Parts: sequence; C-alpha cells; structure tokens
Amino acid sequence: MTKQSLEQKLSAAGNTVNMLRNSQIGAYNYPVVPPEFSNWRDEQRAWRETAVLFDQSHHMAELMIEGPDALKLISYLGINSFANFPVNRAKQFVPVSHSGHVIGDVILFHLAENQYLIVGRAPTINWVAFHGQTGGYDVTLDRDDRSPSRPGGKPVVRRRYRYQIQGPNAWKILEKVNGGPLADVKFFNMDTMNIGGRRVRTLRHGMSGAPGLEIFGPYEEGDEIRNVILEAGEEFGLRQVGARAYATNTLESGWIPSPLPAVYTDERMKSFREWLGADSYEATGSIGGSFVSDNIEDYYLTPYELGYGPFVKFDHDFIGRSALEKIADKPHRRKVTFAWNQDDVAKVFQSLFDPSGDNYKYIDLPLSNYASSSYDQVMKNGRTIGVSMFSGYSHNERTMLSLGTVEPDVQVGDVLTLVWGEPDGGTGKTTVERHKQIEIRVKVAPVPYARDAREAYADSWRTRQTA
Amino acid sequence: MTKQSLEQKLSAAGNTVNMLRNSQIGAYNYPVVPPEFSNWRDEQRAWRETAVLFDQSHHMAELMIEGPDALKLISYLGINSFANFPVNRAKQFVPVSHSGHVIGDVILFHLAENQYLIVGRAPTINWVAFHGQTGGYDVTLDRDDRSPSRPGGKPVVRRRYRYQIQGPNAWKILEKVNGGPLADVKFFNMDTMNIGGRRVRTLRHGMSGAPGLEIFGPYEEGDEIRNVILEAGEEFGLRQVGARAYATNTLESGWIPSPLPAVYTDERMKSFREWLGADSYEATGSIGGSFVSDNIEDYYLTPYELGYGPFVKFDHDFIGRSALEKIADKPHRRKVTFAWNQDDVAKVFQSLFDPSGDNYKYIDLPLSNYASSSYDQVMKNGRTIGVSMFSGYSHNERTMLSLGTVEPDVQVGDVLTLVWGEPDGGTGKTTVERHKQIEIRVKVAPVPYARDAREAYADSWRTRQTA
Repeated sequence: MTKQSLEQKLSAAGNTVNMLRNSQIGAYNYPVVPPEFSNWRDEQRAWRETAVLFDQSHHMAELMIEGPDALKLISYLGINSFANFPVNRAKQFVPVSHSGHVIGDVILFHLAENQYLIVGRAPTINWVAFHGQTGGYDVTLDRDDRSPSRPGGKPVVRRRYRYQIQGPNAWKILEKVNGGPLADVKFFNMDTMNIGGRRVRTLRHGMSGAPGLEIFGPYEEGDEIRNVILEAGEEFGLRQVGARAYATNTLESGWIPSPLPAVYTDERMKSFREWLGADSYEATGSIGGSFVSDNIEDYYLTPYELGYGPFVKFDHDFIGRSALEKIADKPHRRKVTFAWNQDDVAKVFQSLFDPSGDNYKYIDLPLSNYASSSYDQVMKNGRTIGVSMFSGYSHNERTMLSLGTVEPDVQVGDVLTLVWGEPDGGTGKTTVERHKQIEIRVKVAPVPYARDAREAYADSWRTRQTA
Repeated sequence: MTKQSLEQKLSAAGNTVNMLRNSQIGAYNYPVVPPEFSNWRDEQRAWRETAVLFDQSHHMAELMIEGPDALKLISYLGINSFANFPVNRAKQFVPVSHSGHVIGDVILFHLAENQYLIVGRAPTINWVAFHGQTGGYDVTLDRDDRSPSRPGGKPVVRRRYRYQIQGPNAWKILEKVNGGPLADVKFFNMDTMNIGGRRVRTLRHGMSGAPGLEIFGPYEEGDEIRNVILEAGEEFGLRQVGARAYATNTLESGWIPSPLPAVYTDERMKSFREWLGADSYEATGSIGGSFVSDNIEDYYLTPYELGYGPFVKFDHDFIGRSALEKIADKPHRRKVTFAWNQDDVAKVFQSLFDPSGDNYKYIDLPLSNYASSSYDQVMKNGRTIGVSMFSGYSHNERTMLSLGTVEPDVQVGDVLTLVWGEPDGGTGKTTVERHKQIEIRVKVAPVPYARDAREAYADSWRTRQTA
C-alpha cells in the first residue's frame, strides 16, 4: 500500500477549508514541558520583572542542511538577503509560495562553513526538505521532528536541547554561570559561553529590550546544563516557564507563530503536495475561529502583512520573487496588537456560570487558541477589515491580547469588533464545545504592545469607538 | 549521611502548619496523562451523557501485601469490618490515627487467598507499609509509587495499567468488547472479562447510577487494552478524559480525595514519623486555602466528618478504636457539597481583566485546588462552621462546586460564606500568586450533588440566606 499524500487527501475531502476547520488533531500544544512549574501568573511576571528559562527543546522541528549547495538551496527559498550571512550569524528565514504567500518562518543558524540549521514549525521544514531532496542540490539533510504531543510516559529524545534565558536579570545570571563577562555581540549573532565544565554555543537574543541568550547543545547534556543555570538563577528570581504560559510571551513581543502555510493550491506546488504525507502538519493541522471563507487562499498572508516586509530583498532569485515584486509598493495590511475590552471578556466568563443561558466559546487562560492556525474575524462598521491570529492573556497587562493584521487605514487606538467563537454552534474540531458567538470590542495597539502605546491610547475606548 | 526523617524536618521547621502552608512541592497533579484529549468541557459532558475512559494508571501509589498475616495487618489498621471479605471483593479501606483521625483512604482489593492490593494516595500506603515492615507480621510488601509529576520526557513504567469505563453507555461498550453479556455483579465485586485476546480482571464500579467497570492488568498490555476499548467505544461517544477534567468528576460524585493525614502529632506515632523520609508525601505535601490555625490538629478529620461513619465497625481491634468509640454517638460535622454563587465567582474572573484593581486568587478551571490538601474557611454569621476541601467547576452543572464538612446544625439550602484565597496576600507556595481574599456565597447541597437537590433548593438564595 502506498502512503497517502496531502494531494490525495485534498481531492478526497473536496473543500480544503472544511477539511482543516474540522480537523481531529486536537490542540497544537507545547509538548513534554509540564503545564506549570510554579503558576502561570508568576511565570509571566518573571519575564517582565526577573528572569525566565524557556525550554524550547520539544515544540519545534529541526533540519540540518549540510553540503556545498546548502546556501544555494536556502537562498532560492527565502525572501531574505544572504549577501552578508557569515558563520555564527542567524536570521528569521521566511519562504513564500510562487504566489508570494508565506509558508512559514523559522530561525536559520549558520553553524559552520556549508552547515545550516533551521528550527521552527513543520511547514518550513517540510518545504526546505522537499526542495533539498528533489531539487538536485548537493546537500545532506538530517531532520528531527518535534516531540510527540502526548508522549504518555514513553521516552522522548531529541537531537538537541534548546533553552532561552530571558528577562531583566538574564544577563546577570548568564555572566555568573559563565564565570565572567560575556561579549555583548549583536542580536542574532552567535558565540559561546561556559556552563559547568562545558563550552556551549549561544545565540544573542532579548525580550523587551533586555539582553538574553538562546543556548543549545546535545540533548543528553540538557538536564545538566539546565540544573547549572537554575541554581545560578535562584538568587535572581529565575523561574522555569511551563507549557501554559510559554507561548503567551509572544503576545507581548509581537511575533505571529501560526500563519496557515500557503501550500494547498497552485499547480506549481502539486509535486510538493504529492510529496507531503496525509499525516503531515499541512494535512492534519486545523483552522479555528470566526473567519470563514470557502476559498482556502483567503487564509494566505503575504510577508508584508506579517511584518516581514523589511526582510524582502530582491538581490537574489527566489520562489515567489516575481509575485512579491508586483505588490511590494502597494498598500498592505499590517500587523497589530488587539487589546480586548475587559467588560466583553468578562461576559464570556460569566456565561460559564449561568446554567440558564447559552455559553460562549471558552477562553482558555492564559493561551486561548484552539487550533493550529487561528483566524478570528475583525470588523469595523460591519465590514471585515482584519483577522486576529493568536490570542491569550497577559497577567503583566491584566488584559486579553491578540495579534493579527488589519487594513492599511486602520489606526492605532481604533476600536474594532472581534467575533469570538465559530458560527453555527462551532465546527467539529475536538477542541470546540457547542457555543454561540459573541462580539468583543478590541482596541488597536502597536506591535510590540509597549507601555507608551498603552498609555498614549488609554482614552481611546471613548474617543475612537467606531465599531 | 543518614536520610533525614519527617520527624527531624518537623523539629527543624518549628511550626508544622507554617511548614506545610509554605511547601514548595507545587501543584498536586494528575501526571503523565495529557491535559486534554478533546476539551475539558466535552470530556465532563461525556461522563454524564455518553461514556468516558479514565486512565488511572499514574496518579496513585500501590502496595501489594502477601502472606499469612496480610489480613491481620490490614484489619488492625482499618476502621472497616473484615467479617465478610472473600476473594474477589474490594472495599474503601480507611485507617485512622490513635486519636481516631483519618490518615487517608484507599481501595483495597482482595485478589487471592492471602493476597491484597491497596491503591490510592501515599499516606495510607506509607502507614500500611510501616506497620507491615516493623510490626512483626509475616507478610511481603511490593510497593509501586505513583508516576513522577513532571516526567519531562523520561520513560514512565508502572506495575499495572488501571482504567475505568464509566457513564450511561459504559455497559454497552464493555459488553461489545467482551463479546457478550457481562455478569451484573454487585458494586465493588470483582470478576473478569474478555478484551481483545485477553482475560482481564474487573471491579464493578459506577457513576451517577450507571454501571461501569474498573479494569487492570500488566502495564505493558495497557496500550493494547486501551486501544481495543477506544475502538469499540467510538460509536457510543466514548471519550478519554484528560488531566484537567479527571479529578472534577468527584465534585459531582462526592468523594473527598485529600484530607490531611493525621500523622504530625501524638507520641504514639513518633516512630512512624522517624520512618517517613523528609521527601515523603507527608513531609513535602502542602496545605492551601483560607482556613488557618496554628495547631495542625485543627486540620485533622474524623471518619464521620468525611462520610465514612457507616464503615466504622467495632467488631475487631484496630488502631484508633477506643478514640472512635468515645465519639461514635456524638454529633459530628458532615460532608456536603457547596454550590458557589455565580455572581461572586464572576467577580473573581472580572478582577483578572481590571488593570487598576487588586486581583483575587485565580480560580483555575476546571480544577481549582492549589495544594495537596485544601482547607477553605466556611462561615455563617461571622463564625467558622466548616471547611471546603476540594473545589472546581462542573460544565454539566454550569456551576463551581466544592466538597467539605459543616457543623451538624447546618441545613441543605443554607447560604454560607466561603473565604476564597489566603490571608496577607498569600503564602509562599509556588502555586500562589499575590492576591487578596474575597467572600463567596455558597449554598449547601447534598452529596452527591444530585439533580433533585438542585431543583428542590433552587429558591434558597433568597429564602435561606444567613451569611
């Protein structure tokens, strides 16, 4: 029996949107890491006030790309420029479809001459692996899929551990571990440091202006390295962040992790869909939310809409270049933060405790997504003018926040309407209980959701209400 | 270096209540099983409307007791009668301290001649193991501790898998799996059934009046057995229940899982405390909630208060007998359900979304306990007249419920006041964020929280308010 492909599954399903909106895969979770180490409120507070250790060893896939054609392969798939990309540099690598729509984004590490590692969600890993295997490149590929979502007590082993130390006290902890000052290399530059008796590779990172590091190494050394850091961090209020809080850090920092990969249409990508299995992320992933269109292409996004416009460089040939050249100078939707109205959110919770009333879609705290990709309709005067794509609660802000894209004329401070919940009582996804929809007022704020923005627009609930 | 004992830890700590109220152990969780299989609302609904599979393989400790003195040991520690306890019978086994206070409760299986298995929380397992090892009994003991709370990808292996199939469709599913009718043995009687190609031992169980079974066998057969049942159950709406929903089933059925073991005082139990390690449940467990006394004995409960009065049989000699004989005929506190006022609960959630206000202790849904043992003060006219000991949310009832004990004169339908949250901003437990306390009105209801009770007392918010 031949393994079924995504292409075959799409043909059998008929409508791709229906297929993905009713996926049975369940929640896209943050596996293996415990839900909470202390409690998610204090874990969130720690990245704002003291320091955190994020254990990113399990939720991402990795692909090692080695060989003389490695950069040629990467360059042909990325919107990014590679004109200045020496060893020990990393970048946020974004491939797009032939039509210029985002497939995904990953972190690309230039580890050594002709050796590159990409780390992130499956769609980009799949796309690069497909071209690496089928495009006649002189490369070898070593793939390490993300950990199982429900290991159920079975052992989990990865190629590498991967931790981030972030927050205002991160640098003090790292220098204490290192046993002396660390070179203050630029953001996304790589270096090394001492941890215990080992020399460990680092990537310069940061959150809310405070410097931090991502560190990685052989998986079997992970417990030892983590313990050294935790012990050093104790006096600085270092906390481990659990699976419930982890992904909510992006609500404050502004990265959208989960655009739908633009791979379901276009004859030029048919061979990729035939290469992808019926068990792939693309075939099993889910779409959640109130935004519904019959046409799967209405869920695709350009790099400009997701804030990746500055990455687009027409200094090399790449898939999607001609499509992007045509739209580069046009107006684009842009990425924003939505701050949810507290009274409207409270109504959703009140419905839980009212035995006589309908209930609204449960807002899980602190992370409220219930699909691999979320698309909630955002409206102004009854017209859809954007989507909300990643939602949750920040205890630091005492506010529900989401990230999404809006039409160019929407201004920071505008009050729009987000439709929460799915139509007709909800889809057949396993994460969806029967519910009714509710309109939630949301205030448009910048990305990242900075303090000055909040304060400058504090009055806008009154002054800019347009919905 | 000698291993430190509980007794040593207590001496060093000074005040036992302070020690336990500030434990750093973290949440008492339901390990290994994923947080949700579908979503916790629908998982709760399934045990009321269709059927569920509870995977109880990980959260309990087990002790196998074998030998000619096995029953003698058990009988000397239990309030229960063993006058009629043949092979293939089980019972809820309750040991008490010399002072007549509950140490814990477990399920006791009479598996074969001179072979008994006890299954439950650690305190009873520890107490029985201590006497089995030190009391001069001719028994062998084989202990299997509960799975680690945070396995972090390390393999987890137990002696036995343990599943329950419950709900209105449970019996149909079990008879389909068995390939024919199952004998309708009485509650807590054991039998066997066919699952796949195997003959599996069963315990007659049930929820809300519908018959169900607990099944168990060698751990390595667990996946196979589970898969057979899940496949058979699909047409009957069988759902697996995740870690978030699991323990909330007891809010509807009325068992209190978590009394504090009455082992911290009394010279007669000093040798037990010296036997218990500083890493034992008793030494590391936590007390949470608004009820605070300097005296740890104020947290102890008698079997009568927990609803175990009918188990007490003075037909044998057992530890605690004389203490219980003295109080048997006196008035006792009794076990009740508290239904929480919806407006007061909503206030707690509203505080999450108000950046300007104080926040109340987070009510995690659906399970809201934040310690190994919960003790929330329940008041009437400003006087403490009970405690709430296990709280959470039932989507079936659309109501926050808790279980606890109240003074004898409290009546079903009375409206009391539960103090939610800890005084002075909260203890140092890792599960506790800074918060302020709030009074929540609760209505006294029977155990289990049955439909007729709810309907009969629907008006009592108006008619019986006394707080």
